[in-house]
Amino acid sequence: MRNLISALDLERSEYEELFELADRYIEQLSKKKRLDKLNGKIIALAFFEPSTRTALSFASATLRLGGKVIGFSSEDAISIAKGESLADTIRMLDSYADCIVIRHRYDGSARFASEISGKPIVNAGDGKHEHPTQAILDLYTVRKIFGYVDNLVFGVLGDLRYARVVNSLLRALTRFKPRRVYLISPPQLRARREILDGLNYPYVEISDPRDALSSLDVLYVTRVQRERFPDDLEYRRVRQSYRVDPELVSMMSRDSIVLHPLPRVDEVDREVDKYPQARYFEQASYGVPVRMAVLSRVLGVA
Amino acid sequence: MRNLISALDLERSEYEELFELADRYIEQLSKKKRLDKLNGKIIALAFFEPSTRTALSFASATLRLGGKVIGFSSEDAISIAKGESLADTIRMLDSYADCIVIRHRYDGSARFASEISGKPIVNAGDGKHEHPTQAILDLYTVRKIFGYVDNLVFGVLGDLRYARVVNSLLRALTRFKPRRVYLISPPQLRARREILDGLNYPYVEISDPRDALSSLDVLYVTRVQRERFPDDLEYRRVRQSYRVDPELVSMMSRDSIVLHPLPRVDEVDREVDKYPQARYFEQASYGVPVRMAVLSRVLGVA
Amino acid sequence: MRNLISALDLERSEYEELFELADRYIEQLSKKKRLDKLNGKIIALAFFEPSTRTALSFASATLRLGGKVIGFSSEDAISIAKGESLADTIRMLDSYADCIVIRHRYDGSARFASEISGKPIVNAGDGKHEHPTQAILDLYTVRKIFGYVDNLVFGVLGDLRYARVVNSLLRALTRFKPRRVYLISPPQLRARREILDGLNYPYVEISDPRDALSSLDVLYVTRVQRERFPDDLEYRRVRQSYRVDPELVSMMSRDSIVLHPLPRVDEVDREVDKYPQARYFEQASYGVPVRMAVLSRVLGVA
Repeated sequence: MRNLISALDLERSEYEELFELADRYIEQLSKKKRLDKLNGKIIALAFFEPSTRTALSFASATLRLGGKVIGFSSEDAISIAKGESLADTIRMLDSYADCIVIRHRYDGSARFASEISGKPIVNAGDGKHEHPTQAILDLYTVRKIFGYVDNLVFGVLGDLRYARVVNSLLRALTRFKPRRVYLISPPQLRARREILDGLNYPYVEISDPRDALSSLDVLYVTRVQRERFPDDLEYRRVRQSYRVDPELVSMMSRDSIVLHPLPRVDEVDREVDKYPQARYFEQASYGVPVRMAVLSRVLGVA
Repeated sequence: MRNLISALDLERSEYEELFELADRYIEQLSKKKRLDKLNGKIIALAFFEPSTRTALSFASATLRLGGKVIGFSSEDAISIAKGESLADTIRMLDSYADCIVIRHRYDGSARFASEISGKPIVNAGDGKHEHPTQAILDLYTVRKIFGYVDNLVFGVLGDLRYARVVNSLLRALTRFKPRRVYLISPPQLRARREILDGLNYPYVEISDPRDALSSLDVLYVTRVQRERFPDDLEYRRVRQSYRVDPELVSMMSRDSIVLHPLPRVDEVDREVDKYPQARYFEQASYGVPVRMAVLSRVLGVA
Repeated sequence: MRNLISALDLERSEYEELFELADRYIEQLSKKKRLDKLNGKIIALAFFEPSTRTALSFASATLRLGGKVIGFSSEDAISIAKGESLADTIRMLDSYADCIVIRHRYDGSARFASEISGKPIVNAGDGKHEHPTQAILDLYTVRKIFGYVDNLVFGVLGDLRYARVVNSLLRALTRFKPRRVYLISPPQLRARREILDGLNYPYVEISDPRDALSSLDVLYVTRVQRERFPDDLEYRRVRQSYRVDPELVSMMSRDSIVLHPLPRVDEVDREVDKYPQARYFEQASYGVPVRMAVLSRVLGVA
């Protein structure tokens, strides 16, 4: 793997290698081992859209491996504001860094960058398209907790139409053998046809989470955003039905887990944090080792 | 010391250890010694409120000790803007870094962070509450210049009600034996009751700096802000009375010193910079070694 | 050289030493050699005006040499917003870093900083005055491609009145022996008298690029900005005449080159990128090694 643009860029064996590499990094970090695989490397964090979580975890991953970081965290501060094209900006970063991690509001921007740049490109979120390192992290968490990804029943809840993390997750799952995937959303936020057409595992589209909760191993929650709805009344009605609260969680099995890419606003009730199923903070804690694994692979040092 | 939230968290002996450590760092830096006590450590600078001076001095302190920095410098750029809770943001930083330096507009936010995080927390300013590393730096400067803190007469001038540096300084002084502290402010900006109640040294509240200047060893100046006053006329009247200019300084003894946490706007006249009493730039230059001392102590490497 | 404020600060021999140093850094980087000349040094990037290209290339240059970076990238985020003077901000950076790279909207701000600070100052653009590292990079590119700078015919096109890169370039050329320099601009954007008066080589001011194109070795293009014109009609007319497109480039000799400091908006047609004369991306790629050379010289480590 030279670039990581889509969750489909990786074969199953490559997912598994990344998981094992992340395992190893977690162990080495816990032993306070000094790592230097990225020694002498500069990673450009090109965040045209603001982010904290993804940008800081890539920064931390780079530094933990002995690498260095340059970059920017919004379009305002940079020459883009003067009207420079994305192509010219990428050409610039290409001569300043050894790898470019890019987040941009346009679908396909990461692929475009990879066509311009001679350096490895990692997609950290391109429009409504994909966010593959999040999907790797999501499945890493599942494997960490259950020991495997195959044969589990997944529920993916919320905005399945515009959430790039959902696209990446559903595509990453094609490299495994989930028993079934419930796609749980209001009708107007159903997953896109081009995503569904590529799925090679059984899935069911449903509207009421209550129809699936008791059979799930993994419930993956995403936020339903106000701007997707024509009026506020409709939005509030939908939000309420898809809000994960103690009542919903108590319908899930004791061994099941709730994941969320974070940040959350109120789509997972804070009360849920105390339930054993709530594993989203553990999930978040794997962000650094998983991104360490991704960076060392695209840079060919692991 | 595991966290540094309040100036009251430190015993006198701990202040003295920090002072000696800062002395040592100054000496080592002057010899261009390469320091590596924070080698392999990542410090998160979580500045929810903008700052230059404090943030950059913590960054410089970390780098001088061989550590690395991640972070953000305002709320705008981060997920907080999407509505994430402070607790969730702290949990994130907890898994990305080895220590969190936090500035936030809410009183008590640093204490709250320390209850969430398993990593050491350093308060870099929480609302109108405290800014303890500034107080350490203030007293370090006094000790550096006079050789001791005890038995000196202090005047603290300006906004004693809303300035967190004042709270921390007055509390830090309880660990020493100042001869007397003059609290010099307009009536509406008097120090708060809960701060005064904790003081164990003689203090006097006065309104006119002229009543104390000649007896001071240390004059500590803070800014009086426009927004504390109902009308502009009142504000300008007060500002004028509390402005430190050559006339005021010439009423002070030749051996006395003027300190200021900086940045200043016009509360210390630029003409004063030339007077021997003006020691605020020297004070500022101790920001890095003092913060090096604090970071090495909370991380248990010194 | 202790500071780099103006292109006139350097003798010809110093330009040549910088060029050779940049050559050496390019070679060492291509061999993936680990460089550590700035080990233990902190460079402050004080960008009071936003920039991507210059700031990131200085950051990359510092990191490639083993140094570390602190800084800010706009006035908004910093104490300046609270009304702090530039002098106080520079004094602060002076105690936090070993070298200050400054960009500021005021002409003369870099010189002013050098009078305040005891640390080396590098001017990364001061108002409409100068941007000397860009000029070094420009001439480095010329020498890299032609093997020399002397005896070439230059054309400098666009805004010669307000573009600081033009001032620095014209002044840097006084250290060499260009055969002739065509100053190509609309009448209202002619170079300033105080710049022209200092030139020691033959120059001609013309308005129509077509009058010079066929005789040029180097065409240096800068952007003509909307705000320099009283009305939009006039602006659009001028912009069209000074836009470098395939038709113009086809009037140039096969061995000539087109340079541009970047970022560009539309003053060089993207179609031109495919022509052999287009060398501005190569030029941009020298930003890091040239700035590595500058930093090592001002810090006295090369």
